Amino acid sequence: MDFLFDNVTIEGGFIKEKQNLNIETTIWAVYNRFKETGRFDALKCLWKEGCEDIPKPHFFWDSDVAKWIEAASYVISKNPSKELEDIIEQAIDDIEKNQWEDGYISSYYTVVKDEQRLTNRDRHELYCIGHFIEAAIAYYYATGKDRLLKIMEKCVDFVYKVFFEEHSAAFDTPGHEEIEIALLRLYECTNNKKYFELAKYFLLTRGKSEKDIHHRPDLEMKYFQSDKDVYNLETAKGHAVRASYLYTAMAHYAKLSGDEKMLESCRTLFNDIVNKKMYITGGTGSISRTEAFTYDYDLPNEVAYAETCAAIALMFFSQKMLHVENKSVYADIVEKCFYNGMLSGISVDGEHFFYVNPLEIRLLNRTRSDNIKDESKRSERYPITQRVKVFNCSCCPPNVNRVLASFEQYIYHKNEDVFFVDQYVKSTYDDGKIKVITDTLYPVTGDVKIKCEGVKKLAVRIPAWCDNFALNASYEIKDGYAFIENPDEIELCFELKPKLVSANPSVFAVSNKVALMLGPVVYCSERIDNIVDNCKLYIDKNIKAEIEYSDEFMLNTVTVKGYERKSSDALYENFNEEFTETKIKLIPYSVFANRGESDMAVWLNYR
Amino acid sequence: MDFLFDNVTIEGGFIKEKQNLNIETTIWAVYNRFKETGRFDALKCLWKEGCEDIPKPHFFWDSDVAKWIEAASYVISKNPSKELEDIIEQAIDDIEKNQWEDGYISSYYTVVKDEQRLTNRDRHELYCIGHFIEAAIAYYYATGKDRLLKIMEKCVDFVYKVFFEEHSAAFDTPGHEEIEIALLRLYECTNNKKYFELAKYFLLTRGKSEKDIHHRPDLEMKYFQSDKDVYNLETAKGHAVRASYLYTAMAHYAKLSGDEKMLESCRTLFNDIVNKKMYITGGTGSISRTEAFTYDYDLPNEVAYAETCAAIALMFFSQKMLHVENKSVYADIVEKCFYNGMLSGISVDGEHFFYVNPLEIRLLNRTRSDNIKDESKRSERYPITQRVKVFNCSCCPPNVNRVLASFEQYIYHKNEDVFFVDQYVKSTYDDGKIKVITDTLYPVTGDVKIKCEGVKKLAVRIPAWCDNFALNASYEIKDGYAFIENPDEIELCFELKPKLVSANPSVFAVSNKVALMLGPVVYCSERIDNIVDNCKLYIDKNIKAEIEYSDEFMLNTVTVKGYERKSSDALYENFNEEFTETKIKLIPYSVFANRGESDMAVWLNYR
Repeated sequence: MDFLFDNVTIEGGFIKEKQNLNIETTIWAVYNRFKETGRFDALKCLWKEGCEDIPKPHFFWDSDVAKWIEAASYVISKNPSKELEDIIEQAIDDIEKNQWEDGYISSYYTVVKDEQRLTNRDRHELYCIGHFIEAAIAYYYATGKDRLLKIMEKCVDFVYKVFFEEHSAAFDTPGHEEIEIALLRLYECTNNKKYFELAKYFLLTRGKSEKDIHHRPDLEMKYFQSDKDVYNLETAKGHAVRASYLYTAMAHYAKLSGDEKMLESCRTLFNDIVNKKMYITGGTGSISRTEAFTYDYDLPNEVAYAETCAAIALMFFSQKMLHVENKSVYADIVEKCFYNGMLSGISVDGEHFFYVNPLEIRLLNRTRSDNIKDESKRSERYPITQRVKVFNCSCCPPNVNRVLASFEQYIYHKNEDVFFVDQYVKSTYDDGKIKVITDTLYPVTGDVKIKCEGVKKLAVRIPAWCDNFALNASYEIKDGYAFIENPDEIELCFELKPKLVSANPSVFAVSNKVALMLGPVVYCSERIDNIVDNCKLYIDKNIKAEIEYSDEFMLNTVTVKGYERKSSDALYENFNEEFTETKIKLIPYSVFANRGESDMAVWLNYR
Repeated sequence: MDFLFDNVTIEGGFIKEKQNLNIETTIWAVYNRFKETGRFDALKCLWKEGCEDIPKPHFFWDSDVAKWIEAASYVISKNPSKELEDIIEQAIDDIEKNQWEDGYISSYYTVVKDEQRLTNRDRHELYCIGHFIEAAIAYYYATGKDRLLKIMEKCVDFVYKVFFEEHSAAFDTPGHEEIEIALLRLYECTNNKKYFELAKYFLLTRGKSEKDIHHRPDLEMKYFQSDKDVYNLETAKGHAVRASYLYTAMAHYAKLSGDEKMLESCRTLFNDIVNKKMYITGGTGSISRTEAFTYDYDLPNEVAYAETCAAIALMFFSQKMLHVENKSVYADIVEKCFYNGMLSGISVDGEHFFYVNPLEIRLLNRTRSDNIKDESKRSERYPITQRVKVFNCSCCPPNVNRVLASFEQYIYHKNEDVFFVDQYVKSTYDDGKIKVITDTLYPVTGDVKIKCEGVKKLAVRIPAWCDNFALNASYEIKDGYAFIENPDEIELCFELKPKLVSANPSVFAVSNKVALMLGPVVYCSERIDNIVDNCKLYIDKNIKAEIEYSDEFMLNTVTVKGYERKSSDALYENFNEEFTETKIKLIPYSVFANRGESDMAVWLNYR
């Protein structure tokens, strides 16, 4: 495979449990919803105008199915399943049957003739094709079967002809990025330079094409990352998922091409996101409408968008940067996104999903009335408070499926000289020459044992959250990794204690508040665990905490010393500081809203 | 006059200066805008469909002109002006000429025949008539001329016939309350019981009529205070100005009728507002759309509505309650509204107005982009940041005119036994039997001298903001007033020092923040006066302040010891408390936005 997936086996611990849940429950939950809603059958292209038996397909449905196939393929790689394979084979039959003679694939445009194919930049055609390419690659690596791969190569040849040779589509670059990622992976899989050329074309044409301007006249071009060329983007703008998919492809391109200017652009964008536009959970996109990046330090909690897919997209971008630069900051962000803003997208039971991941819930605020009877016309909109089984726009669930099923790829990486341990997971890497066995309960504890065979130089990440660690070997720190020559049995101990984190004071929404972290895990207070509303709780700044492992969450919960703010019934009174001591129970942010509706807050007052 | 206006002369100080500005500038500024926009000429009823020379009138224009006439009449009472009188006489000519044979008056329905008169409850017909009644009363008291009064009595006879006798209008009670206030005043002016009966009918029918339901099917009935009858309203709901106008009439009715149940209803509503739904500035209405009350403690700063008229309406309601109950809390709220949420509605130059009075401005937040090109379609709406000369919906400016021009009525009141000093203003009360002379620079200082002649029992309000006071006579405190028998020369000293106020911790928006008050005046920080963004400023909780009188504002400014929060460039970092000491300059809230656009905040962090 084009990454380290094949050589890695996850052996146990939190992530193994999440993977098992994915295999046993989540992948089927998503499949069943997609089957029920007609997404799989849409590949048969049977819908016609006036047809009432079959749901009319949506133009993004292909991408949902494709991501599911990709995820199922990762599952098959590690846990062969005839049942999953049969579903995929059926889907491939349908795709093959309905591929246009020229190679074009779209279950939407094949049946819904509302406009010509490739005339509307915002109709996700290349986005869907991109996901089919990634599915084809994953299925090929998992099974050795190249039927879908060949179908997609034929399709890409068509895209190449239309976009690269003829420029005959109504636009030059896709409205929703993704095919750029897929084409670079296809290039690595097939070694066919044409795919690299096409990806490069899409990347370098972006923001410079007059044909790309007029497809959504209501939206600013920055929404599509099309206001500037990729070398001059400067700040993360527009739709957060689209943007981060683009940056992922840019980073991959920079690695493959050695284009230093492109890499510099990626660095600028990465730093802009993580230093100015990222929630503490790794979520991005702080405005609901257009699901987009906004201005620096604008990170409201209650109306956060922080789409599950955006956290995943930032993982992708960070991982690509890690493989170019070998700096721990990138693996830190992968970890932050995974344990917080991405995992919050899925319920503990593995069957329910959040698309939007707010950092605060105030149920009372949902009653805020502007006296408009029709709720859909009210001025206030808030994210839902409970995960649901299915969304109309269902990009997030299969994205969670594929990240969980392929977490192996995030754990290790290597270059000519060094073997890097990026994520701490109980797992084995074995490529025949090198064998590395990691034993740990991380992030439940901070202790990690690593046994190495055939490794000349080992680099272990010192997580950004860790202020103290012990290591039983001599090491040198560089770029956030501890480098150890000729390692044998390494024992690492990251001091895991609850700590308070503050945001830059420019973050208005959390000015004068703190969040609690334990290792990479961000915590929150749910009203149901505590005696008063979150806004009346104050954490003692000299933190005194009890840690308790939760079987339900498979992570630690933390109870800290705190205070409840007291007051008279008056609306305003002379300033005073009347508090009573109390305990505040905090749970991992990722598991909020698993025990019914409740107020929730990541950021709390302190004293 | 039906209040204490006539016997009072304001002699100097802050309010005298504001009154002079009103006479010299504001009343003319408003007149000129109304003249320019066609509001005065609309009374001539010359507009026709297709007519391009004359602006089409709006259905609320009559109320704007009426409020201006009322204000100008108060001005004339104290400062006779042929110029103002000529304008009013011309207006009366036009009104008289265009009064319908049956008595009906509406410059809108007389020319715009878009629907039948009295068929649409939300078209402000009775609201406009109510304001004309109040104008007529004021002009009659000011000049002794009763032409407009007679016109309005004829009009009210028509309203009486249609609503009270025939029930022939399409609705039973007005969509926008105001005529109830006017009718009770007209009753007091004429002693004609019919007007009292009609007011009573409107009050007691409200919330019980099936005919009142269907005129704005998009809105909930609570918007119109029509979801329940007036004895069972329980909480302040719906449009804040409409609601408070209703409550004003209810309180007046309770006084006139001795209806204890109505008074209890008024008490409940008053307490609900001031204990759960009022900004520290006296503003109410915390949601922009429908300009309405929302749930308890929902008082967001940046998107506060807090319409200038709502602060005025709460003054009216409080003043009526004061005259029923003689409790200082009502006068405290009059004071709070006047010095803060009402005065913020007008610029220091007297020519510019706010309709909406936010308690915080963050200019950067105005750049928050949802990528929609058309600004009018963006999801975020914020109040304007600079006062303007004219609004399309221009209820606030003439409301400011009439409150400023009639502030005499708020200063004193009396019952059989007691003479009350409610507001501290350099002024004289003289009714031939009783003479009271107040000498003070309040609220610039807390020293007040009161000379009494013919007063058996004096009651002086001890303001709610005052923690310590001295009084050179023996007194008893009751209901917030100090009662003094046979007063002569009273010297009062209210300790005037800056103090920090906190809100009930249930007020989410200002959880863990403080506001500074000096006397009744609420302060704010404007970015232009201080070194960093407001969210990085922390006031020292052991307040150390310098007070300086500002000629520009005619009030004190306050500079306090504070801190600037420091941080690294990181978005998140281990909690720390790095501060540098600084000074924070605060100005009265009412004068914010008089020196160009700036960030502003009433509520600040403390430490």
